[in-house]
Amino acid sequence: MKNIVSRQIVLAARPAGMARLSDFAFVETDVPALGNGEVLFRNILFSIDPYQRNLMGNGSSEWPSIALGDPMGGPTVGVVEQSNNTAFAVGDHVQSWSGWQQYAVSNGADLRKLDAAVAPLSTALGPLGLTGFTAWYGATKVSEFKPGGTLVVTGAAGAVGSAVAQLMRLRGHRVVGVAGGADKIAFLKNELGIDAAIDYKAFDFKEQVARALPDGIDAFFENVGGPIFPVLMEHFNSHAKMIICGTIADYSDTELPQGTNYLPRLITLIHYRFVDIKAFATPFVMDTFPAFLAEMTPLVAAGKIKYREEFVDGFDKLPETLLTLFDGTHSGKKLIVRA
Amino acid sequence: MKNIVSRQIVLAARPAGMARLSDFAFVETDVPALGNGEVLFRNILFSIDPYQRNLMGNGSSEWPSIALGDPMGGPTVGVVEQSNNTAFAVGDHVQSWSGWQQYAVSNGADLRKLDAAVAPLSTALGPLGLTGFTAWYGATKVSEFKPGGTLVVTGAAGAVGSAVAQLMRLRGHRVVGVAGGADKIAFLKNELGIDAAIDYKAFDFKEQVARALPDGIDAFFENVGGPIFPVLMEHFNSHAKMIICGTIADYSDTELPQGTNYLPRLITLIHYRFVDIKAFATPFVMDTFPAFLAEMTPLVAAGKIKYREEFVDGFDKLPETLLTLFDGTHSGKKLIVRA
Repeated sequence: MKNIVSRQIVLAARPAGMARLSDFAFVETDVPALGNGEVLFRNILFSIDPYQRNLMGNGSSEWPSIALGDPMGGPTVGVVEQSNNTAFAVGDHVQSWSGWQQYAVSNGADLRKLDAAVAPLSTALGPLGLTGFTAWYGATKVSEFKPGGTLVVTGAAGAVGSAVAQLMRLRGHRVVGVAGGADKIAFLKNELGIDAAIDYKAFDFKEQVARALPDGIDAFFENVGGPIFPVLMEHFNSHAKMIICGTIADYSDTELPQGTNYLPRLITLIHYRFVDIKAFATPFVMDTFPAFLAEMTPLVAAGKIKYREEFVDGFDKLPETLLTLFDGTHSGKKLIVRA
Repeated sequence: MKNIVSRQIVLAARPAGMARLSDFAFVETDVPALGNGEVLFRNILFSIDPYQRNLMGNGSSEWPSIALGDPMGGPTVGVVEQSNNTAFAVGDHVQSWSGWQQYAVSNGADLRKLDAAVAPLSTALGPLGLTGFTAWYGATKVSEFKPGGTLVVTGAAGAVGSAVAQLMRLRGHRVVGVAGGADKIAFLKNELGIDAAIDYKAFDFKEQVARALPDGIDAFFENVGGPIFPVLMEHFNSHAKMIICGTIADYSDTELPQGTNYLPRLITLIHYRFVDIKAFATPFVMDTFPAFLAEMTPLVAAGKIKYREEFVDGFDKLPETLLTLFDGTHSGKKLIVRA
């Protein structure tokens, strides 16, 4: 049988600051013959996510990064082309963390079989994938939020933020979303129907914050970081709970910003208002993934959790598509590269 | 019966930044005749504590401050001079929150009777008073610290800090104390016998930090704040626990410092190292005061918790004595004004 050649995109250099196209390299490898119990699949959908900048290293993340020369990591959806595993048939769709490579081989343990009749395959990378899981786990499992209180979510038009906003609204919270630009604000107001939306790019950002938060902040889901947080934190109520999911505005930073040092102010707020700040990391809590799917699958299938996707065609477009997350041009829709 | 005149020191103005002598005024009032069940006592010992700056208002604290014209607040030890209450006899010693006034009247509910045979009366303002209670509650009741781990305490030569250091050493922690100047460091090493001491005023502060923390920080008890915290926080281990007791270096600040903004770095540490930061406030947890006394009284009586006191004679010296806490001249000993 003729060898299958798999195109891969590997990490060629660690970025200093913003990621660049030159940090990636294209290589080709022969796919080895299948062993007992193994499955060969071809990736057809690739997830583009903010944390992938962290996988490249040299940013603010403190976690291990991908080794130079290894394929870039990330979730994918593939279609099985060969199988020595009775659990998977040729033509089955599978979700896995196989990264930026056209073909991958697995013993099946890390594969999740998908049913396109339940929800579109792409949702396995979005609201029914790690993106949705991040929203669900962070908003419901890390802290107990007081029902009826005001929950603020930053990056509210994004893939994680919009899932948080809708899920928490369904659970009875007053949800205030923060996003940048008129298009995203219109999406929050018209499509998601949340209680208030704040445009951090607007000239009257601070006034919008004050208007949207007459009763302060009880719960805060942080996806963004950067200069808007010090404005928002002033509205923390006593015993407010903050969940740090991500700080995309800071991921590329190699030096700390200069100007006002807001650290003593945050410490003062924690001191006098007992603000409770917690972080979480999905790799450590994957045992709850089935419970997430059980709650979220019917909500997504019924259209109660809406999502927006933007598809880019072509495996080779992966690097430049990732870069758009950080250059300010990103629409907030879940980015998926289709090969 | 001749009226008793009570001299009081009242809040005359709210300081902008550092407290000043002109923020206080001396007044005299007649002590009213005793009602049924009431006790009249003359204050003989007055506690001087950092949080008293916060009671004056206009600093970083967010809690209610004393009303202008009211006596300055704080714990005292008094001696009963008249009693219509069978629980208190003339000559009894009582501890209360009666503030900066020579005489006070109480129905007895807020009085703690002291026994000078168990421990010196002054300890009711120090290790067996609110100071010790703050140390005990903060270090043992707010978070669970991993036994055997490294606990860092700032202001370690101070009244609260030295109690934390000794108590936690008795409980089996490796204790590293941070203080400023050779005298305090000698006290930490020679008198308290803690595991390591760091002089934040030394030219090689950062190297001292690195040497004292080869295994990082598991628990952190914050009394100080200011510019040394960003150096220390870099040594947080994963799942480190931080207790905010106070930030004396920031209490007088009316504006945030300029320079490097360390807030994003702290958020990053919380995000990737799951640092858990908690605050507490003794007014809300006074129900545990008896448990504190039960544990700490024998330790103080047996000399296992050492303490240092500095007495200043003269009621009228109260304002200037408080100011020395913030001007950099304070020795770290528990300050008590004797009238």
